[in-house]
Amino acid sequence: MTSTPSPVIHPAWLPAEAFRALGSRRVRVDTAGDAGLLVGTVLAEVSRACARFGGSVQPPEAPADLVLTLAPRSRGDAARHGGPRPDRDLDGFRIGRRGASTVVTGDGPAGLFYGLFEVVRRGEAAFDPGLADERHEPAFGLRVLDHWDNVFVHRVMGQVERGYAGGSLFWDDGRLRDDLTRVGDYARLLAASGINAVTVNNVNVHAGETHLLTDRLGEVATIASTLRPYGIRLHLSINFAAPVILGDLPTADPLDPDVRRWWSDTTERVFETIPDFGGYLVKADSEGRPGPFSYGRTHADGANMLADALAPYDAPVRWRAFVYNHRQDWRDRSTDRARAAYDHFAPLDGRFRDNVILQVKHGPMDFQTREPVSPVLLAMSDTRLAVELQVTQEYTGQQKHVCYLPPMWSSVLGFQPTGDDGPTLATRLSGGVLSAVANVGDDPFWTGHPLAQANLYAVGRLGWTPGRDPAEILDEWIGLTFPGTPRHLLHALMDDSWETYEQYTAPLGVGFMVRPGHHYGPDVDGYEYTPWGTYHFADRDGLGVDRTVATGTGYTAQYPRPWSERYEHPDTCPDELLLFFHHVPYTHVLHSGSTVIQHIYDTRFAGAQRVAEMQAAWAQAAELVDPAVHTRVTERLAEQRRSAEEWRDQLNTYFHRKSGIPDAKGRPIH
Amino acid sequence: MTSTPSPVIHPAWLPAEAFRALGSRRVRVDTAGDAGLLVGTVLAEVSRACARFGGSVQPPEAPADLVLTLAPRSRGDAARHGGPRPDRDLDGFRIGRRGASTVVTGDGPAGLFYGLFEVVRRGEAAFDPGLADERHEPAFGLRVLDHWDNVFVHRVMGQVERGYAGGSLFWDDGRLRDDLTRVGDYARLLAASGINAVTVNNVNVHAGETHLLTDRLGEVATIASTLRPYGIRLHLSINFAAPVILGDLPTADPLDPDVRRWWSDTTERVFETIPDFGGYLVKADSEGRPGPFSYGRTHADGANMLADALAPYDAPVRWRAFVYNHRQDWRDRSTDRARAAYDHFAPLDGRFRDNVILQVKHGPMDFQTREPVSPVLLAMSDTRLAVELQVTQEYTGQQKHVCYLPPMWSSVLGFQPTGDDGPTLATRLSGGVLSAVANVGDDPFWTGHPLAQANLYAVGRLGWTPGRDPAEILDEWIGLTFPGTPRHLLHALMDDSWETYEQYTAPLGVGFMVRPGHHYGPDVDGYEYTPWGTYHFADRDGLGVDRTVATGTGYTAQYPRPWSERYEHPDTCPDELLLFFHHVPYTHVLHSGSTVIQHIYDTRFAGAQRVAEMQAAWAQAAELVDPAVHTRVTERLAEQRRSAEEWRDQLNTYFHRKSGIPDAKGRPIH
Repeated sequence: MTSTPSPVIHPAWLPAEAFRALGSRRVRVDTAGDAGLLVGTVLAEVSRACARFGGSVQPPEAPADLVLTLAPRSRGDAARHGGPRPDRDLDGFRIGRRGASTVVTGDGPAGLFYGLFEVVRRGEAAFDPGLADERHEPAFGLRVLDHWDNVFVHRVMGQVERGYAGGSLFWDDGRLRDDLTRVGDYARLLAASGINAVTVNNVNVHAGETHLLTDRLGEVATIASTLRPYGIRLHLSINFAAPVILGDLPTADPLDPDVRRWWSDTTERVFETIPDFGGYLVKADSEGRPGPFSYGRTHADGANMLADALAPYDAPVRWRAFVYNHRQDWRDRSTDRARAAYDHFAPLDGRFRDNVILQVKHGPMDFQTREPVSPVLLAMSDTRLAVELQVTQEYTGQQKHVCYLPPMWSSVLGFQPTGDDGPTLATRLSGGVLSAVANVGDDPFWTGHPLAQANLYAVGRLGWTPGRDPAEILDEWIGLTFPGTPRHLLHALMDDSWETYEQYTAPLGVGFMVRPGHHYGPDVDGYEYTPWGTYHFADRDGLGVDRTVATGTGYTAQYPRPWSERYEHPDTCPDELLLFFHHVPYTHVLHSGSTVIQHIYDTRFAGAQRVAEMQAAWAQAAELVDPAVHTRVTERLAEQRRSAEEWRDQLNTYFHRKSGIPDAKGRPIH
Repeated sequence: MTSTPSPVIHPAWLPAEAFRALGSRRVRVDTAGDAGLLVGTVLAEVSRACARFGGSVQPPEAPADLVLTLAPRSRGDAARHGGPRPDRDLDGFRIGRRGASTVVTGDGPAGLFYGLFEVVRRGEAAFDPGLADERHEPAFGLRVLDHWDNVFVHRVMGQVERGYAGGSLFWDDGRLRDDLTRVGDYARLLAASGINAVTVNNVNVHAGETHLLTDRLGEVATIASTLRPYGIRLHLSINFAAPVILGDLPTADPLDPDVRRWWSDTTERVFETIPDFGGYLVKADSEGRPGPFSYGRTHADGANMLADALAPYDAPVRWRAFVYNHRQDWRDRSTDRARAAYDHFAPLDGRFRDNVILQVKHGPMDFQTREPVSPVLLAMSDTRLAVELQVTQEYTGQQKHVCYLPPMWSSVLGFQPTGDDGPTLATRLSGGVLSAVANVGDDPFWTGHPLAQANLYAVGRLGWTPGRDPAEILDEWIGLTFPGTPRHLLHALMDDSWETYEQYTAPLGVGFMVRPGHHYGPDVDGYEYTPWGTYHFADRDGLGVDRTVATGTGYTAQYPRPWSERYEHPDTCPDELLLFFHHVPYTHVLHSGSTVIQHIYDTRFAGAQRVAEMQAAWAQAAELVDPAVHTRVTERLAEQRRSAEEWRDQLNTYFHRKSGIPDAKGRPIH
């Protein structure tokens, strides 16, 4: 047998080249004796860059092109900043010119760290004498990536649930990995993008994984210590039934004193072991997971119990609002899964503890390519909310398709709940939590598809500046990740890739139409007669879900004005969400001027054609890109093209068979 | 922990009570010194029955109510009949009255054994002074059950592929079971029904199972010795790539001298270890299995190589004709999976060795509820053929639904290839092979659903008398299995259960419409846009597959006259196969007078209603049936009812949405 050489791990957005501008300068790190862990990381980064590119780390008081320093108010707190629990209020920093130097002033060690990476991102421009003074601070205090990693390989879901990038960075077939080097590298990448927390295990906490909370806590502590130098706190998904499974109690009733004591004692031991532990994440009473409903309690009862256990440590519990009836009868047209989260949680507004964060998927269904904003995020003004994005491309091409997601996320974060003159959702959630389901694994490119790294990168950036133009973030990512490659090449593949994906998949917001189970590839009726509440109701005359108050499920009433009214009427409902809110005939004319059926045909053909063009453009560029990246992307584009054509043909055939209406342009429909 | 008591294993069709008539008589076994294994089994059966019911085993010459004896011509061969290779030409027997005795005369020890069970089946009637003289001999020389059991639990298919009755009787998670008692009991049941061979492993021979042929042959020999006392020979499914996997050869090319020598040597060792070894079964070049196509050779080349290795031992290779393109493009309407077996094999007629048996599924597709007879079985007059039935209810309710299959099998065996005055298929195949995919496992009832035992029983009976009325066989099975229970109770559930199942599932021979992968429950479009070649082509105007010569795939031409003409024209095509052969409008009027769409609605409602009636009838009968059986059947009927209503509603809704034609009777369609 010949041994396979270890694959070279792709540096993502931190290749050596990204440090050239910084590393070729004289740099002074002026922290007046702060010797904490994060400051140490800053020093190590600077030293490494200067060693490579001929710059120098300057002694105190010596002249420097770049000065990295802590704001006075934080200096007195230096000792504790270096300790295990850096204050996240001190993530901010200032950047500007002082004489011939660029000066970065961190509010605290974390701010210093984030400021350093601001310099890296800017490159030569960071040393421009005309550099303007700017203050940076994150819009979201907690910017967390939730891993759906299992400890044990799950019979159906594998090592990483909805993972498309190989195995887990943390666990391998039941065991903590011996070598956590990549976890450290990963933490560095995340910190450089602006992330400050990671949940290390799947929200579906199976029996084996439940033990991470107690007898396997040592493994969790090991991971936490690997994340800590980069200011990343560790969160844990917990099993609501843990007192029964681990504590041998007869119940997990959240009002039972023994149960409450068990959680309190268990949480105390967690913080003894991991003093900067981040908090709990819970999926309860959802898709078969245990929860307070089993005991006739509310979700407020359940969440508050865990909040009380965490309160002494000033840590939060994130409680997922993804609760719906997944044993629905498809014959029952009155039940509407889109309504479920609001119906369950809106009545509980004001009844949660301060350290409960209700974590809400950005749309009312489940991370489809196009959904309206979840009405839960627009209600519940007396509850702390987290918006949950999905970086892992479960329904958006599974990292086989190029699909740059920030334009979708921006449409959520930039949504204006009270109409066109009002503040954005991001403004309303400011200071809160942005969470996202991670898309990484032990793949050499981290994310399977190398271009899916951009989605991971963008989460951190949006966590700081949710209003930023996704194209700008993409441009920043390209500049860092592909030094020397003409940027237009990547822009051409990625800028409109989400719209392209939407063009060849389920049309006009109707969602699903995917193969059940794995969710890859088309199957128009795949979920139509299932208990999952995901229907399109296509018949020979039309399709779409009537969610109006007038004739449908009444879901539109969950929105504030003006959205409740806009969505209620087909003539004001945006085209791209028409079939989410309305059942219309195939001959319905869209605002675009096209009929629904002709729109289906036209966009399917256009989307698949666009992928063919992407593939051709990429093939031309072999000389301009790292060969390993070029090869991998070439492979994935071939599959994307095959899949896009399959989507095109299946959907066109399905709707042609059903509607009987031919394509106005006479193109081939099978 | 409390230990679970071992479940009581159900006696199937050999409860003690079945032996009352025999066991209360004076019985003489008169074999003139033949002390072979099979005669020993006969003696043991008689002794056990007499001990229980007060009869006696008489000494030589003593008066007896029943005399079991060997025909003179076989006596001289006694020594070898007791050895490992009983001659299967000696399976026959005579039964009749001689004076005051009933006399069974076996052609050989196996015939004696089968004659004994004829007496058991007849009960008191076997001792009727008016008993007529009859000669019995099996229509099929080889009557074999093929197990799709894996040695190792397969990631997707589990321990038994398409098994619905628990684990394997032979293997448990990679190991031969320590206790093979149930294998012996199973062999006794099979022998009593008329079976004489068992293939112990799955035709999909995975890597681990490949080793059964060589280094794990000892386990196979152990199973063979457990089957041997009941005249059951062991067959093995082999992997065509075995010379590469086991023999370290660079090729499995059937014309390569080293490969041929490897098979010859390997087969020699098999017969050294198991002198009465039955033969090989091969699935090659099918659904991803290796085969001769990889080497540019024909299936005749592949089969003949194995036949040559087996010829010195007078043993056959069964070569499955289940070869088709399972990577078909659904857009390609010219490829027709139904054509595949004929197109592949008919040109090879006459090119197979005498000990090659081409094993052909009874229909051209894959064990659907209703298919026409495979045209391969009607062609290939110069090739030995086996007809393959599927006892395991893969597409017929998975042993959750009552579905007595012999009426379907009889329609195959009784098919008249040359028209209404010609001989039946069974007659043409007479002396050949009947093979059937087994439906048993380690379930206490053997078959999951207790009533699915009847399907297993009937295979053996049809192997002897293929023309027998399935209702008679059922009555015989009921009498043996349910002594004391009114027979009409079981008849009411089972007589028309296949037709009932057909009524609520895919209509008019169109097939499939099942959930992909596991094949349970409805999904009308589940296989419509897949590579499997299984389509219905339903659109808003009609449905069905045009397999005519005039306008379709030309499949009808694979049949001899008059069938080619009958199937070619909708007005002569039988209703129940209409959609298999024709694409017709929903408004097409059937011979029954109903339109296709109204037929769909009417039969769906009728089928589900029938299941509700079955459930009600069974509930009334709790006092009349063994409680364990009653409980198990009650559970299964509840699921059958749920499933039947799901089929009814999904199919009705699907076709109502597509056709827009309301039910003439105004019943609820969702």
